[in-house]
Amino acid sequence: MKIEYQPIGFVRSPHQTTSGTPIQPSRARGIEGAIEIADEYVEALTDLDGFSHIIAICHLHRASAFKLKVVPYLDTELRGLFATRAPSRPNPIGLSVVRLLGIDGRILRIEGVDLLDGTPVLDIKPYVRDFDDRTEVRCGWLDEVRDRETAADDRFER
Amino acid sequence: MKIEYQPIGFVRSPHQTTSGTPIQPSRARGIEGAIEIADEYVEALTDLDGFSHIIAICHLHRASAFKLKVVPYLDTELRGLFATRAPSRPNPIGLSVVRLLGIDGRILRIEGVDLLDGTPVLDIKPYVRDFDDRTEVRCGWLDEVRDRETAADDRFER
Repeated sequence: MKIEYQPIGFVRSPHQTTSGTPIQPSRARGIEGAIEIADEYVEALTDLDGFSHIIAICHLHRASAFKLKVVPYLDTELRGLFATRAPSRPNPIGLSVVRLLGIDGRILRIEGVDLLDGTPVLDIKPYVRDFDDRTEVRCGWLDEVRDRETAADDRFER
Repeated sequence: MKIEYQPIGFVRSPHQTTSGTPIQPSRARGIEGAIEIADEYVEALTDLDGFSHIIAICHLHRASAFKLKVVPYLDTELRGLFATRAPSRPNPIGLSVVRLLGIDGRILRIEGVDLLDGTPVLDIKPYVRDFDDRTEVRCGWLDEVRDRETAADDRFER
């Protein structure tokens, strides 16, 4: 079974290489960029400016082939891939909750950019607290390492 | 530019038809189901049992062709598609934050199931509060209608 998608737009970002790129939007505060939506979808952006945050679902085009276990950026031990947010995955889909600064025509200005310049965007969704927030969560190995400082390096880059 | 994905597994759910299915996991409390992961990826589930919630990224295979503006389940007005969580999208990708009840081999037992039985799963990510939660968010038109009761009907089904 094959599933075929096409980009609805592309990321514009100051990050040209994986090394040094923040590993998540929550660690990319103040870093601004944009999503350029294809002309044919501009009408679908109506009403989006009422939302402070959006979920950008992207195809991580620079990710290397996946492995079943990886050493994540924030850890020093091998972890099961699906227990990590490593970009090299069977389907290299990235999920970024970014702040929406404004919309100018087909350009979404965003803050908290953890994506490489040129990353294809597959979908934009409004971030909705009632749908996307959970309280009282356990975060496994990540609960132990949450305060570590780190940025990406080239371990997951092809 | 074409992007090709393959399912890593499939959803098992009590929901056989779109009509009546909860529109989000947060409105599907107590509804249990499973994700059956393909054998080749079972090793990648290591460490995932430390997390209370996972993000299931799915291909919404029963969604109809998209329109640029839609009347969402929770509203009575036309809204820009990307300002809604309607399943009919240029790339029909669904995002569900569900509770992980347990892992038995290749079976992830989950709660909060808003997905149809047989839905192809593209990716599983651990839900991480620091990465995925945002405080002080504005949710546009959805802030006005958040307390409305609703379930899906067939408006986005093919």
